[in-house]
Order: sequence, then structure tokens, then C-alpha cells
Amino acid sequence: MSQPRWLDEREQCMWRTYREMYRSLESALDRELTQDSGLSGADYAILVPLSESPDGALRSRELRGEMNWDRTRLAHQLRRMEERGLLVRESCAEDARGMVARLTPAGREVIEKAAPGHVAAVRRFFIDQLSPEELDTMRTVADKVLARLREAETGQ
Amino acid sequence: MSQPRWLDEREQCMWRTYREMYRSLESALDRELTQDSGLSGADYAILVPLSESPDGALRSRELRGEMNWDRTRLAHQLRRMEERGLLVRESCAEDARGMVARLTPAGREVIEKAAPGHVAAVRRFFIDQLSPEELDTMRTVADKVLARLREAETGQ
Repeated sequence: MSQPRWLDEREQCMWRTYREMYRSLESALDRELTQDSGLSGADYAILVPLSESPDGALRSRELRGEMNWDRTRLAHQLRRMEERGLLVRESCAEDARGMVARLTPAGREVIEKAAPGHVAAVRRFFIDQLSPEELDTMRTVADKVLARLREAETGQ
Repeated sequence: MSQPRWLDEREQCMWRTYREMYRSLESALDRELTQDSGLSGADYAILVPLSESPDGALRSRELRGEMNWDRTRLAHQLRRMEERGLLVRESCAEDARGMVARLTPAGREVIEKAAPGHVAAVRRFFIDQLSPEELDTMRTVADKVLARLREAETGQ
């Protein structure tokens, strides 16, 4: 790589601000969530897809797909959540090496209590700050970038 | 909180897609970076501000401000990077409990070699996918959200 096309000032500024927004927003949301419900952002990220799945259960492979976590991080997280009674881990009928996480009634109660406050914070800090046009642009940008990333993954 | 204003389908979709974009983009960039230079995203995030500071040194408090990391995570990361010869940790002249991280010549060489490929990947996966108007909108949105978060931090 001889002469890279460095980012110009506007691109650089946008790139940094965008990442700072993401990180600051995640910290603020995590902080509120923990204060209100005792859940971490990671707990929440696991409880939501479980609570939305038909029987409150998902294979760990499906959960990994949802969050881009590696196997070890997910395994630790699920073990700690099992210890706290939020879910149980079961072996997977169709796949001997696989594992299923299943929401307990206590886990469902916790996520149902936590969700309204969390959604209100997402609105307050993010969604309600954006005009409908800005919402659409963010969506378009995200779709384009995700398509490009998938292309790179399969094409390279 | 009695009846929350849940996100409608469009808001929900945008919120999920935006976060998925961030996470997928970070993973793809980290993967390329590690393949090309052996650095992790966390290494890079520390080497960049150090290499940009006047004498290649920053107090750990300044580094923490840059990345929203907690004290423990930063301390571990700096220790590991010192072991690899990328930086040295020094005690801080003005603050007995503070610490200064200083780039070594080897650390500077590594970041200077890694930067062009990383910037090219940021362009390929993200910046070059956006029109100038989309770049501006992303910037406007990020500024508004950051202002709202700062307001919440000081006002509540």
C-alpha cells in the first residue's frame, strides 16, 4: 500500500463523532439499565431475543449470530445468567455439541420489567432526537454498509 | 412507568439495523487490522491518540476520556502493550496517583505501518458507501445525540 487516500477533515470528523456517539450512547443506556433493573447491557442483549423466541429458548449458535460475540464470551455470560436464575442451559437435541438457553419465569419477569424504562431511554437519548428524514437516512446507510460487509465476507 | 411509547416498526428496525451496522463494521475492521498488522482494535484505539499527541505521551486519564473505558480495562490493556514493547508506562509528575503512557519507537513504527491499511478499510466498508449528504446527516445526528447525552449527564 503506497499512498493511501487519507480521510479528509470532514470524513475524519464524521467518523470519530459517529463512533463517539455509539460508545457514549451505549454507556448511557447501560448505566440507566443497571440503575433501574440491575441488568447489564449484555444481560439485556440476551434476554430480548430469548423473550421474543416462540418458546423462550434459542440455541447458542443463534444467539451468537445475533450479537457477534465469540463462543467463550457467550458461554461465560450464559453461565453467569444461569447462576442468577435468569435462564437455564440445556443440551441440544439435534446437535450433541450445541447448547440451548431457555428463559426462566424469573428471567421473563425481569426483562418485562426492564423493557419499558430501557425503551424510554432509547427514545429520549436517540430516536426522539432524529427527524423522520434522519431516521430514514440512518437506516439507508446502515443497510448499505451491512450489504457491503456481507459482500466482502463472501467475495474475498 | 405505566404505558411506555414502544418503538414503532420503522423505529425498531432502524435502531436494530444501526446497532448491527456498528458491531459488524467494528468486527470487520478489527479482523482486517489483526490480519494485516497483528494489532487488535483496542491496541489501535490507544496507539492513535498517543501517536497524535505532541510528545507521544498521554495521561491515562486522557486516554480514558477518549474511549469510555473503565480504569481496570485500560490498566490491563496498557500493561499488555508495555509487555509487547509498544509503549512504556511512567509515573505522572503532576499527579502521584496518575500514570503516563508513552509510545516507544517500535510502537510508532507499528502504528505507522498499520494506519494506511486501516484507513483503506474504513473507506471501503463505510465512508465510500455514503453520499456527501449522508455523511452530513450522520454527523448532524451524532452531534445532536452527543449534545443530548451531555445535557442528561449534567442536568439530571
